[in-house]
Amino acid sequence: MTDSPEAPDSTPVVGMVGAGQLARMTAQAAIGLGVGFRVLAGSAADSAARVTRGIELGDYRSLDDLRAFAASCDVLTFDHEHVPGGHLAALEAAGIQVRPSAGALRFTQDKLAMRERLAGLGIACPRFAPVSGIAEVEAFADGSWPVVLKAVSGGYDGQGVWVCASPGQARAVLAHGLALIAEEYVAFDRELAVLAARSPHNQGAVYPVVETVQRDGICREVIAPAPGLAPGRAAHAEELALRIAAELDVTGLVAVEMFETSRGLLVNELAMRPHNCGHWTIEGAVTSQFEQHLRAVLDLPLGSPALAAPATVMANVLGGDDGDVYDRYIHVMAGDPAVKVHMYGKPARPGRKIGHVTVTGDRSHRDPAELADRARRAASYLRWGEEDGP
Amino acid sequence: MTDSPEAPDSTPVVGMVGAGQLARMTAQAAIGLGVGFRVLAGSAADSAARVTRGIELGDYRSLDDLRAFAASCDVLTFDHEHVPGGHLAALEAAGIQVRPSAGALRFTQDKLAMRERLAGLGIACPRFAPVSGIAEVEAFADGSWPVVLKAVSGGYDGQGVWVCASPGQARAVLAHGLALIAEEYVAFDRELAVLAARSPHNQGAVYPVVETVQRDGICREVIAPAPGLAPGRAAHAEELALRIAAELDVTGLVAVEMFETSRGLLVNELAMRPHNCGHWTIEGAVTSQFEQHLRAVLDLPLGSPALAAPATVMANVLGGDDGDVYDRYIHVMAGDPAVKVHMYGKPARPGRKIGHVTVTGDRSHRDPAELADRARRAASYLRWGEEDGP
Repeated sequence: MTDSPEAPDSTPVVGMVGAGQLARMTAQAAIGLGVGFRVLAGSAADSAARVTRGIELGDYRSLDDLRAFAASCDVLTFDHEHVPGGHLAALEAAGIQVRPSAGALRFTQDKLAMRERLAGLGIACPRFAPVSGIAEVEAFADGSWPVVLKAVSGGYDGQGVWVCASPGQARAVLAHGLALIAEEYVAFDRELAVLAARSPHNQGAVYPVVETVQRDGICREVIAPAPGLAPGRAAHAEELALRIAAELDVTGLVAVEMFETSRGLLVNELAMRPHNCGHWTIEGAVTSQFEQHLRAVLDLPLGSPALAAPATVMANVLGGDDGDVYDRYIHVMAGDPAVKVHMYGKPARPGRKIGHVTVTGDRSHRDPAELADRARRAASYLRWGEEDGP
Repeated sequence: MTDSPEAPDSTPVVGMVGAGQLARMTAQAAIGLGVGFRVLAGSAADSAARVTRGIELGDYRSLDDLRAFAASCDVLTFDHEHVPGGHLAALEAAGIQVRPSAGALRFTQDKLAMRERLAGLGIACPRFAPVSGIAEVEAFADGSWPVVLKAVSGGYDGQGVWVCASPGQARAVLAHGLALIAEEYVAFDRELAVLAARSPHNQGAVYPVVETVQRDGICREVIAPAPGLAPGRAAHAEELALRIAAELDVTGLVAVEMFETSRGLLVNELAMRPHNCGHWTIEGAVTSQFEQHLRAVLDLPLGSPALAAPATVMANVLGGDDGDVYDRYIHVMAGDPAVKVHMYGKPARPGRKIGHVTVTGDRSHRDPAELADRARRAASYLRWGEEDGP
């Protein structure tokens, strides 16, 4: 590619399908790296489209739109896993660099395939089985409820995971006619996540293990590194993520969400893109996850994933009742001049992730509990008017 | 402003006149902060225009273009000091928020006014005098050469400062008919710089003093904090920058370049915008200079200017003989996975600043000499083919 509008000379252009906040923060990293960056956006008001010069409007479900977009890019990547697998394969067949590949992305699009693949690798997961009727769910439960039902792909009402306390609740989910798997309900001690990157050259890099704190099924806080994690367990978690990246032939990032339990680590979910569990890396690691993803899909040498601060806490900002978030900046910034505010340019709707805040600790402020308190307070101020408000 | 293309709801839009690398890096900061950002660019291939959605093409020397641009922004700021003072005053008279103001910017546009103002404040500067002919220059020199001649504003051949070793050299400069000041040639120990920010609310924040290393009149490296600086001298330098910001009624950043000499600190130059001496703050400080400038011109509380790492070194990347800088990324990144590459999307012409690299030290790597060596090596690799090449 010669002197694209976004970059001079032979600098390559990365095209990201999807223009949410992950694409928005990847755009920031692309500016620093000096590589071209374009997004395929559903709307010019999408989070990344508001700030990026290289916008193409189109539908990720349309092969024609994907092809047209790919024609202006040197490599194609994604800020979500919803592009149909057949389209991905068709793009690859047309010679387009799709990273991660259709073959790798399948394991984020089909939860049964993912579970079977990880089980085949001997990686510990929650017990699971495909189920197609209440008899199979009851047999799986064997009298022990709740049972978790997961859509193999997609879902309904924006949801793909249901914790069913009874056969009646399972029947209600089954009634939607989706392909489902049943999983044991894991009584975990806490949730951890590991982010690894892999390049086509098979270079791997892994970030320190983090603790993720969920409330009502939404990630609220990430603490990096995970406090009080036994060194052996941290090494095991990191090794797992690198192994999954290599075995599943991932190009780019893979986020591995895990349960920490009395019987060890169980892999819960996979994503192959920048992930909420890695937003802390913008300030807290030498190389942000967004830059790392770009380096990986461009087959550049990976950046150092080392900690840039002894401890970092990220808290998501959810939309509250009052949309005028900017009015609250003054309180947050005056209250804590060291808090880093990241807003996504999205209108605030209640419960929607509209931004995040990060607090890093130095030598004298490295207590994760203190950092978490500051991050939570800043996120609450920005939300305002909800139960989390100050 | 309601839901501009760049930002939702009532989030304000900052307009920056000029679209060079300073605007480009300010755009990155605006994305994080979630505020709207637009640039007035001379060309769609300008550094910031390549990556920003909110581009307006126009000429900063045209009052009409400035007015049209300002109409889509809530506050106007600058990535250079070349907008004619009369235009700035006209914009202010029309009720537009111009930050820094025409009155403050005058001290970056008129070196005689700057010198007289600083002298009036009792701030130590090199000895100076306005000169209009060789007799005045010779009287100023009083037999002691070299003498420095500076254009009061502008210059020729892209230059505004001449070190004249003899009356003959001074005559050649005088022959261009510019308004000039003569300054003593200072035999300094080294050059330092201090960056301060001030908001309309009169809040001030100052970054730690840095050492700047110039070669052939071009800034090559910045070492933060300045090594081996006596605590009293550091405090004095910081106090000077804050005082200049307040006395000159600066809104936004002010960069104060100083000579460290046996008779103390002498102020050399002022700039009121993000500055090369502050690029290290992207990784090396809690708040980058670009975010700080945005916070200041928006009258938001200023961010913490504290160090984020014990030591940081930035090296500028100059263009070399071979334009294909991207080809060299692989060497730089493989050689040092912790070096941060910032390229500006500018075609490489010999000697032109086309990017910079930053290396931060942690507890085990805080020797500025080692960091400088790594930064210099990375910058040389990216330049390639020049005398600095590997």
